[in-house]
Amino acid sequence: MKIAVLGYGTIGSGVVEVLETNKESISKRAGEEISVKYVLDLRDFPGNPIEDILVHDFATIAEDEEVGCVVETMGGTEPAYSYVKECLLRGKSVCTSNKALVAKHGAELLEIARQKKINFLFEASVGGGIPIIRPLNESLTSEQILEINGIVNGTTNYILTKMSREGATFEAALKEAQNLGYAERNPEADVEGHDAGRKLAILASLSYGKQVDFEDIYMEGITKITDTDFKYAEVLGAEIKLLAQGKMVDGNFYAMVAPKMIKEENPLYSVRGVFNSILVKGNTLGEVMFYGSGAGKLPTASAVVADVIEATKHQGQNIVTIWSNKKLEPANHDEMENSFFVRVPAADAAKAKEVFGDIAEVSANVAGEFAFVTKKMTEKAFEEKAACMTVLNRIRTEWEA
Amino acid sequence: MKIAVLGYGTIGSGVVEVLETNKESISKRAGEEISVKYVLDLRDFPGNPIEDILVHDFATIAEDEEVGCVVETMGGTEPAYSYVKECLLRGKSVCTSNKALVAKHGAELLEIARQKKINFLFEASVGGGIPIIRPLNESLTSEQILEINGIVNGTTNYILTKMSREGATFEAALKEAQNLGYAERNPEADVEGHDAGRKLAILASLSYGKQVDFEDIYMEGITKITDTDFKYAEVLGAEIKLLAQGKMVDGNFYAMVAPKMIKEENPLYSVRGVFNSILVKGNTLGEVMFYGSGAGKLPTASAVVADVIEATKHQGQNIVTIWSNKKLEPANHDEMENSFFVRVPAADAAKAKEVFGDIAEVSANVAGEFAFVTKKMTEKAFEEKAACMTVLNRIRTEWEA
Repeated sequence: MKIAVLGYGTIGSGVVEVLETNKESISKRAGEEISVKYVLDLRDFPGNPIEDILVHDFATIAEDEEVGCVVETMGGTEPAYSYVKECLLRGKSVCTSNKALVAKHGAELLEIARQKKINFLFEASVGGGIPIIRPLNESLTSEQILEINGIVNGTTNYILTKMSREGATFEAALKEAQNLGYAERNPEADVEGHDAGRKLAILASLSYGKQVDFEDIYMEGITKITDTDFKYAEVLGAEIKLLAQGKMVDGNFYAMVAPKMIKEENPLYSVRGVFNSILVKGNTLGEVMFYGSGAGKLPTASAVVADVIEATKHQGQNIVTIWSNKKLEPANHDEMENSFFVRVPAADAAKAKEVFGDIAEVSANVAGEFAFVTKKMTEKAFEEKAACMTVLNRIRTEWEA
Repeated sequence: MKIAVLGYGTIGSGVVEVLETNKESISKRAGEEISVKYVLDLRDFPGNPIEDILVHDFATIAEDEEVGCVVETMGGTEPAYSYVKECLLRGKSVCTSNKALVAKHGAELLEIARQKKINFLFEASVGGGIPIIRPLNESLTSEQILEINGIVNGTTNYILTKMSREGATFEAALKEAQNLGYAERNPEADVEGHDAGRKLAILASLSYGKQVDFEDIYMEGITKITDTDFKYAEVLGAEIKLLAQGKMVDGNFYAMVAPKMIKEENPLYSVRGVFNSILVKGNTLGEVMFYGSGAGKLPTASAVVADVIEATKHQGQNIVTIWSNKKLEPANHDEMENSFFVRVPAADAAKAKEVFGDIAEVSANVAGEFAFVTKKMTEKAFEEKAACMTVLNRIRTEWEA
């Protein structure tokens, strides 16, 4: 099997490295040798061993019939989408780590692969090195998926862990994440929850077999979480995690990325630092969880290479993936039921008790504040009640008052 | 696809139930309807809906060419082995939850399936409903597996959790597990570690592609763990877990089932009650963990049904599984390196310090005892030193003094 790698950045170079490091065992698993015939990049890499196979022109790869599988690790939707589509139309399987591409064009690209009897695989697009796409597609097939809950963004989980463990402020934790290379200089996609939203769109599309559009997902980031919130979380025995949640309730599909307070009973509670974890609840299976390195050069590359091996094992045959282009629209977010941890100025305590009624007070010795956890209610009902007072912050909770 | 179910016990009836409950989504995933044509059991089930399809004679199933897939949930090696082998030789795929059968005859049965272009699948044989077999075989294929650590027996984990959380004695915790149906009246296979050993044999055989014999694995159960040990564990911030461990160290393969003290950093630390979890360490991937219900009627049946769906999707084509009959023999257990938590009578304290040298003392206010954690040493070296004193108990630790 001769392959080409589009993009020699972190993941692309990782793919070349994993293929080299584990050459022998990979050949054994794949049933034949896998070798890299081309690497596509706009840059030159003088002195790098890949120099001999480096090309700058995509056409060289597209037109070479010897290339049976293409790895796409460029990121973004263009030119990735055009390149990937052309490869598939020319009968080359594609393995990608590109969540933006998969979230947006997954249904279409899978359909082309099906028609061409080849494969479009994207294990690395969610959860880095954690096997989650293939288990959803091939192992949890006997289930009706009731709920997915995932910590799918390592950057924000690193920041929240830092705040929880060391009492750091959001700003300080973000800065450290940037210094360590865990967060980008423009961290918006991570801290505003968009990265997690794209991953949730992919997981939900696969779970329900329909297209869940990223833009339809309710997304809230972690920029409003403060060190004061964590003081209360500690008293409550809770962690604050950025959860990507998709669930079916009475035939309605809800999809949300937002910070949530969870307790020890939730297996996601102890997922720390840059690790990712995805909890899936099925109607007969109960809960299963997948945990591991959600990002990083080699773990992500390892998942891409596993896809290349699957593509090699399945030449001439398409691995069935149920993801139609029929849209699955999330139900109205206003109608979603949640309970909330709420902080108001001490002056609003009486008002809060009056308006929210049945609440559980929380004391963390924060001067001038009154804090509590509410009963479950719709998002709309919460917003209406919250409008009657000054809300310093509110975070959804896994338990009600 | 018409299937037959061999054995209408807990798992077998669960398979029929899952197929019925999720009929629609299963047909969609499998690409065709899956229906149960026969159930084989020696017993009669008057009034049960399966009465009409119940048969007592295996030959009816074996000789019916319409049956394309057979589910084996009888347990034990005979007659399961003879039945499964005959089905495979007659061109029927087989899906089984039977760990004893798979651990002993996996290599041979996989080879028959390969030759016949059908499938022998056993996702439910380890970890109940947790996807672990297929991920090892199809997702972690780009890895060299350095280590597997699993909590793969729910009964013992329930007992140890009870002892840890409530200070129960082993006897009391076992009794409660029996009352709740988590432990059998003869609990030997669970509490002596044999069940975990069979599962480790399967996981290791798949990870390294060679036959690991159950009988070659060093196995220690949990019957010697006392409530006093848990007093020390609490002081140490540790949990005591029955771990099934397989690892490669400098080309030597070590396999062991034994209780071990682990700390919070280990993701297995927070696996409680009857849950199972398997942590896999790869050379480029780092650690990934799979967590969920390790037993139970519906979760286990769900995994069997997922296999039936895979068999249906792969008619006429064999899913490559690397597991040769070439033996992988564990290295000499005496040479394995471990560190130990050790309790001796107070009178032996001086002796212990002299013999073990560099140790970390542990005080849990237990009268008349001296306890400590050792440096890492070979099992043989430990045994020699321990022979110089009265050892009340010793448990391997994840960390050294």
